Amino acid sequence: MKKASPNPAMVTVHEVARVAGVSAATVSRFLNGTAKVSSDKREAIESVIERLNYKPNVLAQNLKTGSSRTIGILTQSLVSGYFSEAMAGVDDVLQGSGYAPLIVSGHWHADEEAARIELLIARRVDGIVILSGKLKDEQILALARRLPIVAFGRTLSSDEAYGFCLDNYRAACEAVEYLIVQGHRHIAFIAGPPDHADAQARLAGYRDTLAKHKIAEDERLITEGDFLESGGLLAVDRLLESGARFSAIFAGNDLTAYGARLALYRRGIRVPEDISIVGFDDLHSSMCTTPPLTTVRQPLFDVGRCLGQAILSMIGKQPIAIDVPKLTLVVRESVRRIA
Amino acid sequence: MKKASPNPAMVTVHEVARVAGVSAATVSRFLNGTAKVSSDKREAIESVIERLNYKPNVLAQNLKTGSSRTIGILTQSLVSGYFSEAMAGVDDVLQGSGYAPLIVSGHWHADEEAARIELLIARRVDGIVILSGKLKDEQILALARRLPIVAFGRTLSSDEAYGFCLDNYRAACEAVEYLIVQGHRHIAFIAGPPDHADAQARLAGYRDTLAKHKIAEDERLITEGDFLESGGLLAVDRLLESGARFSAIFAGNDLTAYGARLALYRRGIRVPEDISIVGFDDLHSSMCTTPPLTTVRQPLFDVGRCLGQAILSMIGKQPIAIDVPKLTLVVRESVRRIA
Repeated sequence: MKKASPNPAMVTVHEVARVAGVSAATVSRFLNGTAKVSSDKREAIESVIERLNYKPNVLAQNLKTGSSRTIGILTQSLVSGYFSEAMAGVDDVLQGSGYAPLIVSGHWHADEEAARIELLIARRVDGIVILSGKLKDEQILALARRLPIVAFGRTLSSDEAYGFCLDNYRAACEAVEYLIVQGHRHIAFIAGPPDHADAQARLAGYRDTLAKHKIAEDERLITEGDFLESGGLLAVDRLLESGARFSAIFAGNDLTAYGARLALYRRGIRVPEDISIVGFDDLHSSMCTTPPLTTVRQPLFDVGRCLGQAILSMIGKQPIAIDVPKLTLVVRESVRRIA
Repeated sequence: MKKASPNPAMVTVHEVARVAGVSAATVSRFLNGTAKVSSDKREAIESVIERLNYKPNVLAQNLKTGSSRTIGILTQSLVSGYFSEAMAGVDDVLQGSGYAPLIVSGHWHADEEAARIELLIARRVDGIVILSGKLKDEQILALARRLPIVAFGRTLSSDEAYGFCLDNYRAACEAVEYLIVQGHRHIAFIAGPPDHADAQARLAGYRDTLAKHKIAEDERLITEGDFLESGGLLAVDRLLESGARFSAIFAGNDLTAYGARLALYRRGIRVPEDISIVGFDDLHSSMCTTPPLTTVRQPLFDVGRCLGQAILSMIGKQPIAIDVPKLTLVVRESVRRIA
């Protein structure tokens, strides 16, 4: 504190309100972010806060109400476009709700996720939104006895915890079905990590759809990636070296598709003239790849909005009423119709 | 609170420690995240916390120490890969420091940024990291009289505020210089938003480098984008319709380059055989575009680490000793050497 007087401990919301010429309720709204404050009033309040060196004491209020007006968000990666979009959706719902997001990352390690959640609880968040991750359902249900929890990527439905998944199996079926309708019978699949539930569901969708159309499975055409570009690149090298024939690749996710695309480019194989590609995720940049990628769209911003609405409902002890968003195939230009 | 007893208000750290068979200091470290706790001890503590329904009272401790052990991060976008990487760098430094990041987004609106910063202050963050944005330097210096502030994208150096920029001008000069050395004389430039400092610096670098090489500026070859894919796409349409000749495009940033690349693809113009492209940012996906993009690498993870180190130094009242990271040209495959 650089200014000697007045003593900030002595300054109250009421004093700030009086000097700024606004009501105490307005100052409160400004501090809590619970409603919009006109820009005139905002400037007046800011200047008084600075002049009086007022330290708003939300924490002291919190001790009384037991609420910190924050929602913890546990993500697995701060750099992945996938998680970012979901976080932005949560943030969108929280804006103007009076709750601010407190974001931490578990980096796909169950231990780290557990530790980060304790950090959030120690900071008295009012509820926690968990994006995927490796915690067991039992761990989440145990946490949910301590505070409201909403989770994405697992199905939970108890009084204290709510969670939903998107139907990856059905969407994978739809993507493979689309390739078959376009005339493809030799379809390679680049799987995600075998311990990843979404990856398992997509592989099952691929297999079942081939079976449904009486297309014999060729084990050489199923290869494992890691949901990253490098995995897609190496997978295409293996596919080409296997000698198996294929006219299309269903990539486990868009990053895998980017790597696969680059591997084909390196060998002068054209997309979609020689090989068609379908991805999964519809990352923002998939719109602008060359060619623009046909892929399954994950409505992650909407997912984030649903998660935000669900956690606010739980905190407000209201019933959760959300429509789980649907995965949809976005047809662009990376698949060719063959005879 | 679902369990009736014991009364959580009565449970202390010491009681948790006693029941879990560890020291109170270990429980404290666990709750504050200030040091690693072995996984055995962690599990014991977690199970006792749940059994006793203990609510760690970091906030009460905070009222005494005046510290919430959180660092506010004001970003401009939760979905941009640019900001995400910087946030991940801050997060990386904060891990194990005992401080958790509290992330809010200002969405490039000065009013919203100011409101979000008040939210952070009201939650008693110990310091704030500001990533770019539209606040005036005076506003930031005023805030810095209330708590430590570190800013990226502006140069500040006072006792209370520290900020640094990367040298966009020099990096733009280097990129254009590279194109000229590769034989290009007709170089188009797709600028960013004119009120954006980095965009201005890149345009100045482009102009000055042409002048240095006595290449006359062709106004038709300078066109405005918006730092997004759509702007790059429209810009290339305008460039082609202008009738001006060009063999290379320097795109104001990578997203612009993606849009430009797609516009050329749509017209059957090959990259780099017909037109070369250089971007700026080196977003993660630029490694896997076809062709992989030659671009200026922004070391944003390192930037984030520097920002994290700087804010911890300020809070700890230590001198700030960081090396501002350098922008570097990453040569990939989107530029052709011409005669």
